[in-house]
Amino acid sequence: MYKGGYTGKILRIDLTEERYEIEALSPEMAINYIGGTGFAIKTLYDEVPENADALGPENKLIFAPGPFTGTSVPCASRMAVATKSPLTQAVGMSLSGGYFPAEMKFSGFDMMIIQGKAKHSTYLWISDNKVRFKKADKLWGSHTGDCQQMIKDDLGDQNIRIVCIGPAGENLCNFASIINERRAFGRKGVGTVMGSKNLKAIALRGSQAVPIASEEKLKVARGEMAKTMKNSDVLYPAFAKMGTPMVVDHLTDLGIFPLKNYSTTGEFDLSGKIGMAAQGPLTVGKAHCYNCPVGCTQLKVPKKGEYAGTLGEPEFETIYSLGGMTGVENADSIVAADRLCDELGIDTMSAGVTVAFVMELFEKGVLSESDLGGFSARFGDHQAMIKLIRMMAFREGFGDILADGVKKAAEKIGKESDQYAMHVKGLELPGYDIRGAKAHGLNYATAFTGADHCRGYAFQEIFGIPVPHAVDRFSAEGKGKLTVWNQDLRTATTDCPTMCGFLLDMALPGNALENTASLMEAVTGLMFTPEEVMKVGERINNVAKAFNMRQGLTKADDTLPKRLMEEPIKAGESKGHKISREELTQMLTEYYTERGWDSETGKPTRARLEALGLKNIADQMEI
Amino acid sequence: MYKGGYTGKILRIDLTEERYEIEALSPEMAINYIGGTGFAIKTLYDEVPENADALGPENKLIFAPGPFTGTSVPCASRMAVATKSPLTQAVGMSLSGGYFPAEMKFSGFDMMIIQGKAKHSTYLWISDNKVRFKKADKLWGSHTGDCQQMIKDDLGDQNIRIVCIGPAGENLCNFASIINERRAFGRKGVGTVMGSKNLKAIALRGSQAVPIASEEKLKVARGEMAKTMKNSDVLYPAFAKMGTPMVVDHLTDLGIFPLKNYSTTGEFDLSGKIGMAAQGPLTVGKAHCYNCPVGCTQLKVPKKGEYAGTLGEPEFETIYSLGGMTGVENADSIVAADRLCDELGIDTMSAGVTVAFVMELFEKGVLSESDLGGFSARFGDHQAMIKLIRMMAFREGFGDILADGVKKAAEKIGKESDQYAMHVKGLELPGYDIRGAKAHGLNYATAFTGADHCRGYAFQEIFGIPVPHAVDRFSAEGKGKLTVWNQDLRTATTDCPTMCGFLLDMALPGNALENTASLMEAVTGLMFTPEEVMKVGERINNVAKAFNMRQGLTKADDTLPKRLMEEPIKAGESKGHKISREELTQMLTEYYTERGWDSETGKPTRARLEALGLKNIADQMEI
Repeated sequence: MYKGGYTGKILRIDLTEERYEIEALSPEMAINYIGGTGFAIKTLYDEVPENADALGPENKLIFAPGPFTGTSVPCASRMAVATKSPLTQAVGMSLSGGYFPAEMKFSGFDMMIIQGKAKHSTYLWISDNKVRFKKADKLWGSHTGDCQQMIKDDLGDQNIRIVCIGPAGENLCNFASIINERRAFGRKGVGTVMGSKNLKAIALRGSQAVPIASEEKLKVARGEMAKTMKNSDVLYPAFAKMGTPMVVDHLTDLGIFPLKNYSTTGEFDLSGKIGMAAQGPLTVGKAHCYNCPVGCTQLKVPKKGEYAGTLGEPEFETIYSLGGMTGVENADSIVAADRLCDELGIDTMSAGVTVAFVMELFEKGVLSESDLGGFSARFGDHQAMIKLIRMMAFREGFGDILADGVKKAAEKIGKESDQYAMHVKGLELPGYDIRGAKAHGLNYATAFTGADHCRGYAFQEIFGIPVPHAVDRFSAEGKGKLTVWNQDLRTATTDCPTMCGFLLDMALPGNALENTASLMEAVTGLMFTPEEVMKVGERINNVAKAFNMRQGLTKADDTLPKRLMEEPIKAGESKGHKISREELTQMLTEYYTERGWDSETGKPTRARLEALGLKNIADQMEI
Repeated sequence: MYKGGYTGKILRIDLTEERYEIEALSPEMAINYIGGTGFAIKTLYDEVPENADALGPENKLIFAPGPFTGTSVPCASRMAVATKSPLTQAVGMSLSGGYFPAEMKFSGFDMMIIQGKAKHSTYLWISDNKVRFKKADKLWGSHTGDCQQMIKDDLGDQNIRIVCIGPAGENLCNFASIINERRAFGRKGVGTVMGSKNLKAIALRGSQAVPIASEEKLKVARGEMAKTMKNSDVLYPAFAKMGTPMVVDHLTDLGIFPLKNYSTTGEFDLSGKIGMAAQGPLTVGKAHCYNCPVGCTQLKVPKKGEYAGTLGEPEFETIYSLGGMTGVENADSIVAADRLCDELGIDTMSAGVTVAFVMELFEKGVLSESDLGGFSARFGDHQAMIKLIRMMAFREGFGDILADGVKKAAEKIGKESDQYAMHVKGLELPGYDIRGAKAHGLNYATAFTGADHCRGYAFQEIFGIPVPHAVDRFSAEGKGKLTVWNQDLRTATTDCPTMCGFLLDMALPGNALENTASLMEAVTGLMFTPEEVMKVGERINNVAKAFNMRQGLTKADDTLPKRLMEEPIKAGESKGHKISREELTQMLTEYYTERGWDSETGKPTRARLEALGLKNIADQMEI
């Protein structure tokens, strides 16, 4: 059926039974879901039942790279991890790049489904069709960097690629990450699920080449892609040199860099202290993912003071959460806290937003020093930030409440603290003040993973790219249609094949569908029209929606933090703007309609599901 | 001449000129100095002139593994680094194991002589007879673990072996170490010299097998050695399981585990809190050097509290310096501080002894909070300890004075603070209270590197091993002869071939000379009698003495801290004991006499030098 791109094999690992099976990848799966996110979401829907306990053995952890991963297609070593999120109870999916995704393909697998729960702490050692269940007692409790090194030393092979959890995942902090060398599958508690399964790490080593359907066609398609990348004004000239931290300055200019838990956005300029002017001098080098000519990761080392010597590589979202949100002006501390989060295996974004939540409650007098265990936590206090991060990772003291995330923490704290809990569906907010970027707002409200910048990122509002058309970031008009387009496009062209998301924003927005279609033909031999590629994206967004509905989520969950619907931004370039309840309703109605869903209930319709080949879902969901 | 063991090549690297040369190893060198320490000391004497500035381009940094390194002889991946010490102005030599020593042999070299000073920060990339001088700008400032990983990533080879310095070496802290994966060439500021040369790291990858003169003879000799190792009551049954931390408990039992800067030795029992009872539960695994069947390094991870998750592997001497000496009872903090020292590239021993010095001065009121920069530093304060370590590594604030080591710091602080500066020749004391182990005291007074437990460790006093005869640890009688024997034996049988020092203490003391001779014949084809092996040790101790004399050291430097000659141990199993000035003089006289040196001046005699084949030294030194 398919000639290349896929290994044709799915690895199913049962931790309870210490057993594994190798299953065949079906052609239908490849055609309808492409790979990566598509495979992962489809499997999640099929295999994780209604009301599954996110931290129980019935939840699954599904790793899936795409057909381009491990081939000569640049920027394609990326991978999805899907599970039911303990933080949102919805689809928990996170993507990460690096070398592990390519190594998984070299190991011979298109997907790895991990189920059950190990009886004792375990790590998996997988090489070329063999899985060994290894005791992880000695690794348990260790930092993620040390854990990886100890495994390499134990197995006597320094070329092994490893993903692992840190203490946060072991202690079931609800927003624990899975660390992948220096990168992270950061969000939605995928590391928490791994911890709940007593699985400390997965070590991979492969030796199989990924087959290619047509090397000739691939050369042409790759050449086109390289040309488009070179033509970008941003990708090589700026992004390769500065990476995502450059976004801090840009959002500050737009007046939508969130400050102090969204209480003071636009009121002062932190970019000089934590943006490029501060980040640049700390930068000591860069890092690439497998087969990436860009290399956006910026390695930073503070030179003086209490954080000197600690290497970190905070991305924009980390500088937002550990910097802007907390009001911390000490750039060194952000680098150090970023590293600490990676070593502890805790999501920098949820961690920072939760720290900011604590700081606002502390300043408002809702939380006291004695609540926290004997220290103060005002905005800007980097030492308090670092203490709180550790407390959450280890669930120590008040950290035990915070480790559930702001949504549940606010329920426990009470006293109207939910007013300050910045999340959607339980997922802490990313770093775009949506009051001045409304498609971002609608995307946060509707994305199947909660407030997620990675699902349908509205690059149009941020970089002024007129694709598919120019937009006014302050207007709610047309944002329903735009968000559907953004979500489906991103799912289909970056999260499935898989491909780096930054390419979509900075180089390929105008021809992502064509690029995906021609690379798919070259790599796999499967023929797609651009419209068919887009339909894969739509299909996956519908399957994910069905999964969420089955887990009890309703239209009421497609909402935004009260504060952002009530308080306008008080100063700066986005002064006076908010997303009113009416605007949100208007955008949601347009969104549901564009999706072919019922605009009253926000539920998919049978007609649309059937048009997408998802009759089985319509039947199962009794739609 | 020689058929095996050696590569026959010396690599000379000139950093000033960015040039390297490969020189032939002379047969005389192999016969007279065996390898390792022998090669390094001989080269140091020949090439580093009188009054060389330890931190100037005229100083050299000499790396030398031995003929057994990289062969199938177990426990032989060990290596000497020699230089003029900035801390002592004497021979600065440090040994370390791991994988780097073997890799150096695989790279084709018996010795690496690094001279000059790089114009900008540099690292060396050496593989199979080629040396590349690489820019280290991006590595400068980084922790040693990150530095190693960044080099591997940059060179695209995870199997490279690396030694590097951390911020302490860069900032010329006088007791900076050279880190070798997780191990250290810890003492005497060898890392400071590396920093002064703007050399951040040396990366090695080799592919050459070490030739063997007679595989058949080697099999026999190795079998004998393995048998002796197996017969040891301590090596596998205890040491392999507990490593050096077990010595804490043993020395506590003997009443010679130094407490609070030697002010309270024997007065309380800290072993329950920082010895095996505390260390055991933190242990998560062990690590081996290349081709070592024992694996004594104990990996430890604190499980709870502020240091949770941080992997460290404190050896006995680190637990002594960061624990006993500072009175710190928090075992977790010792693990974390050990790791911090390794990441910063600072010697745990000198660092801990210096912290203890500060703490005693603080308690005595000689130093105040404002002297330290706004914090208190009482005995037992682990947070102050960690702050001080960072301050010394970065030479920040008062750390700038402390970073010179206790000898020079006491000179600057004045106010009789030298009373509390525990060092010999500027090298901070190891963890044996010599008042209850007098051969240890004499060894500290006479060792060519200063107060060094590695030069002539008197295992007889600690483990009751009656080789060459039983001794009374409280007596000064016979300790001169014993110390000469210990120093020469250790130099010849462990530091030259090279071989792990613990084997000598725990398995081989009775037949170390025979073992070395038979392995030398098997590996290299060179024939030695046991007496000739011992003579190599003696020769090296004479060459090192000559080097020190030329740098201005005299008999007056062969002394001990005043406190240990004046204040007896106040309680415990060694209560009432001290080494009086008279006893020291008596031991020194016996020592000089045994060495065939002038007992009045403590200088070598022409007769003895000539008997050792060192007429050139007698001529040069005008003896």
